[in-house]
Order: sequence, then C-alpha cells, then structure tokens
Amino acid sequence: MNALLQQIAFIKEIDKLKYIQRKTRLFNSERYENDAEHSWHLAMMVLVLAEHSNEEIDILKVLKMVLIHDIVEIDSGDVFIFDTTKNHDNTAEELKAAKRIFGILPEVQATEFITLWLEFEEGKTNDAKFAKAMDRFEPILQNTSNNGGTWKEYKVPKEKVIDKTKPVSFGSKAIWDYSLNEIERLFKTL
Amino acid sequence: MNALLQQIAFIKEIDKLKYIQRKTRLFNSERYENDAEHSWHLAMMVLVLAEHSNEEIDILKVLKMVLIHDIVEIDSGDVFIFDTTKNHDNTAEELKAAKRIFGILPEVQATEFITLWLEFEEGKTNDAKFAKAMDRFEPILQNTSNNGGTWKEYKVPKEKVIDKTKPVSFGSKAIWDYSLNEIERLFKTL
Repeated sequence: MNALLQQIAFIKEIDKLKYIQRKTRLFNSERYENDAEHSWHLAMMVLVLAEHSNEEIDILKVLKMVLIHDIVEIDSGDVFIFDTTKNHDNTAEELKAAKRIFGILPEVQATEFITLWLEFEEGKTNDAKFAKAMDRFEPILQNTSNNGGTWKEYKVPKEKVIDKTKPVSFGSKAIWDYSLNEIERLFKTL
Repeated sequence: MNALLQQIAFIKEIDKLKYIQRKTRLFNSERYENDAEHSWHLAMMVLVLAEHSNEEIDILKVLKMVLIHDIVEIDSGDVFIFDTTKNHDNTAEELKAAKRIFGILPEVQATEFITLWLEFEEGKTNDAKFAKAMDRFEPILQNTSNNGGTWKEYKVPKEKVIDKTKPVSFGSKAIWDYSLNEIERLFKTL
C-alpha cells in the first residue's frame, strides 16, 4: 500500500477519538467532553500559554504531543484520574494500542508518534512537562467553572485535587499559582 | 488585566466551539461533527499529510491556521458550503467575530491570530492553500464513507461537489487525484 493510502486509513481510524467520553464536563455545562475536543482545546492552550512555560519549549513538538496524547484511548478507554481501582501508568494495554493505531501509518511516522507519545507519558522532558501541565490545567478550569464539577460529584477532597493537579507546576509555576488560588477559592464554597 | 488572565478568558470563551455543529457527519455515522472535533482532525491531517503539499509549507503555521480557522463561527455560525442563499466570503460578520474573540487575548496574540485567520480566508499563500485543502478534504472522506452523506442528503450533483472540493488540488495534487477518484466512484453508486 502506498504512503497516502496508509495515512488516509489512519485519518479514518482516529475519527473514533470523537466517541471517547471524558469524565469532565464542558465549561458551565452538563455535557461531557470527548477526547477529540479535549485535544483541540489543549492545542489552543499550548499556542496561547507557551510563554508561561518554566523552560524553553519546542512549540511544534508540544502541539504534536497534545494532539496525539489520547489516541491510545480509542482502544484502551479513558481512565478517570481519581479512580484508584485503575492503573494510571503507561500500561501494556496502552502501548499495544499505540502500536496498533500509529502502526497504520508509514513506518517513519508510526515511529515518530509512538516515540512522542512515550515521551509525553514519561513526562520528563521540558516539552512533555508543559504538555502534561496543559492536560491537568484544562480540568481545573472546567471544574472551577462548574462549581466543583466532577471533583464535587465524586467527592474528591481538596488535598487529592491538589496532589493530582500539581504536575501543572512542573510545566508552569505561573499557571500553577493561578490554579492553586482557584482551587482554594472553589473549596471554600463547597 | 495581566496577560495570563486575558489568555484564560480566551481559553474559556473558545469552549463554545464544541457546540457549533457542522453539516457533515462523522465517519460511518449519523452523528454530526462539531467545529472543535473538526479542527482537531484537520490538525492531525496536517501532521500526517504535509509531505503531499504541492509546495514547501511551514507546518507550525498551517497547524495554527487549522486550529483557529473556525473560531469565528462561535459568533457567526457554520455556513453549509452548498447553501446558495448564504454568503461564503469573508463577511463583515466574521471579521467582527474575529476581532471580538481574538481580541480577548493580549494584543500581540490577538493580532497574530486575526492575521493568520485572514491569510487562511484569502487562501493565497502556500500555507493557506494547504490548510484549505485539508478543510475540503475531510468532508470528502466523511461523505464517501457515508454513502454520499450530506451530498446525497441535499442532492448535490457531482459537478457541484467537484467544483467545491477542487481547492484540494491547490494544496495537493496527489490528494486531489485520490479525492476525484473517490468522488467518481461514489457517484457511480448513487
């Protein structure tokens, strides 16, 4: 099969990301967000907030990371960050999903995306730290706009919210300061 | 207001893109696509298909274009490409929307996004041609996967489909060859 046909097969396959429902709701809304919408929103956040990164980042690379970071969930599903019964690490199931889905692409592209996804999951480089910061920051904005949203719904205590959202600080201290303030303010009203 | 607060206000505002429903349906599906999902899908297509561009392109710039290209529809709504009663040009209403929504950002970013959006709308540069090609190519993939989809539903004749999707060729002759073939094959079955 030529490269274009492989790429088109991949483009069709990833349409399924639009059906993967997250545990957070849209802003001031009851409607759950799906992974494709979420990935678009993170990409916009990268463009708009890059200047607040603690360290120099490669914007194109970070954009690629957030655009592809949830594609494995087409096979493995969304795991709620506060679900203690599930494994949140880079599971064998997710790696298998990455290999299957990115593997639809020509080999060079498949390798690039799998490598990028692993870098994001590990969260050790400056680029991955900022990408992950955006991934944790969006639900902070959503839940504080929804009077606690899914945090309130699932009775997640403030300390646990702070613990799980703290990786925002590894990407951006400025955005973390803002976030912590919003979380404190929210919990005073709950 | 400091830059971060302006940027966060913008991030909250553009959540509304997730409610703007397009006239095309997801692949092999009855469900309509929304503008946020569509924008994410175009960004993925840019990443995956860039090598087929007729001319050299700046991938980061093209990504920005497709990520923001529909944001004006938060105010002005989606106009179906085959609706002959509506104006499809860069209308005064859309420009007003661009100024209002991007204007929530700090001035430098607002100017960058308005300029990028105008470049996309004009469709004259290599970057804009490729971005527009992706915007026309996605519905080709969707409608051919849905036995004609909204083309069939609205009884759009083949010649009109070809006329409206031809801008794919300005961005990529290879993708246009594939598209034309798919359109011809589809219409034989209708």
